[in-house]
Amino acid sequence: MSRHFESAVGLCENRDPATEGFVFNQTMLRIKSPKATLDFYTRIMGMTLVKKLDFEEMKFSLYFLAAIDTHELVDWSHDNRERLVQTFGRPAMLELTHNWGTEDDADFSYHNGNDEPKGFGHIGFAVPDLEAACARFEELGVSFVKRPQDGKMKNIAFIRDPDGYWIELFTPGDLPAVLG
Amino acid sequence: MSRHFESAVGLCENRDPATEGFVFNQTMLRIKSPKATLDFYTRIMGMTLVKKLDFEEMKFSLYFLAAIDTHELVDWSHDNRERLVQTFGRPAMLELTHNWGTEDDADFSYHNGNDEPKGFGHIGFAVPDLEAACARFEELGVSFVKRPQDGKMKNIAFIRDPDGYWIELFTPGDLPAVLG
Repeated sequence: MSRHFESAVGLCENRDPATEGFVFNQTMLRIKSPKATLDFYTRIMGMTLVKKLDFEEMKFSLYFLAAIDTHELVDWSHDNRERLVQTFGRPAMLELTHNWGTEDDADFSYHNGNDEPKGFGHIGFAVPDLEAACARFEELGVSFVKRPQDGKMKNIAFIRDPDGYWIELFTPGDLPAVLG
Repeated sequence: MSRHFESAVGLCENRDPATEGFVFNQTMLRIKSPKATLDFYTRIMGMTLVKKLDFEEMKFSLYFLAAIDTHELVDWSHDNRERLVQTFGRPAMLELTHNWGTEDDADFSYHNGNDEPKGFGHIGFAVPDLEAACARFEELGVSFVKRPQDGKMKNIAFIRDPDGYWIELFTPGDLPAVLG
């Protein structure tokens, strides 16, 4: 039996035991305005700020957010060091980097990776009910790249965060039939 | 009690119940060569290919990888549709997009977000033993952006994947004291 679930060129079939325990912990995006972006990810996306790190000498801050349900909060420590270890040890943390002062520069913006030159594409969230989620995003004035009914891929939406990074949205049990 | 663990401007204190159940599922990066990149993420990083989707008409493929320990594999379904639902429902999936043909174009490359124009920064992995992990990466010929002993932030390393995307590496229990 393969340890993979699909075949493809390049796959390594024998997992090196040295990689056991590796955790895909974080994705880092640079942000212009913590005020706008923390509002977006905590109010609109429901995420929790788990850890903030300020580097005064180098004039930047890091914000680590998690999409955790309220009942999971009891698992998080109020001890700073222990929470740091949790922050870097668990999967699916969103790390936001703020270089101080960019928020005051009207001409400053970050590159979202989907205009040229392309690279990074998007982050993606599973939501329990895509239709309800998108109706709420519309009400809240969120910017859409693609609504669920647009284009070929029904039941998938893309919105923009305050820096223009794309966020894909879908309900796993209701994905387009074309996906399998 | 705040639902956040740090204070910051922009934070929303009252979580909208409509966001319960949102899962930070995926991070998508475009890749030039599936052969090189799947080798890297499965052999060197130990990840598992969970789902592949081919779009013949639009000439691209998607690869979904997870950093899961071997014992977790029993949780994954061998039913295609069910595995699709799992793939889009669980946290911390790495989605790789391959536009067919780019691998044969010697001049083609993607933008890693750390050269200008900046935006996306990196993905990051927790590893049980950073020193051992980096010694192994050196042996395997992995390209380093920063070795653990370089610069101010000891105990943190950065390597490059085949497209030049940065991967941060750290051992959560052994992070630099400057972090708190």
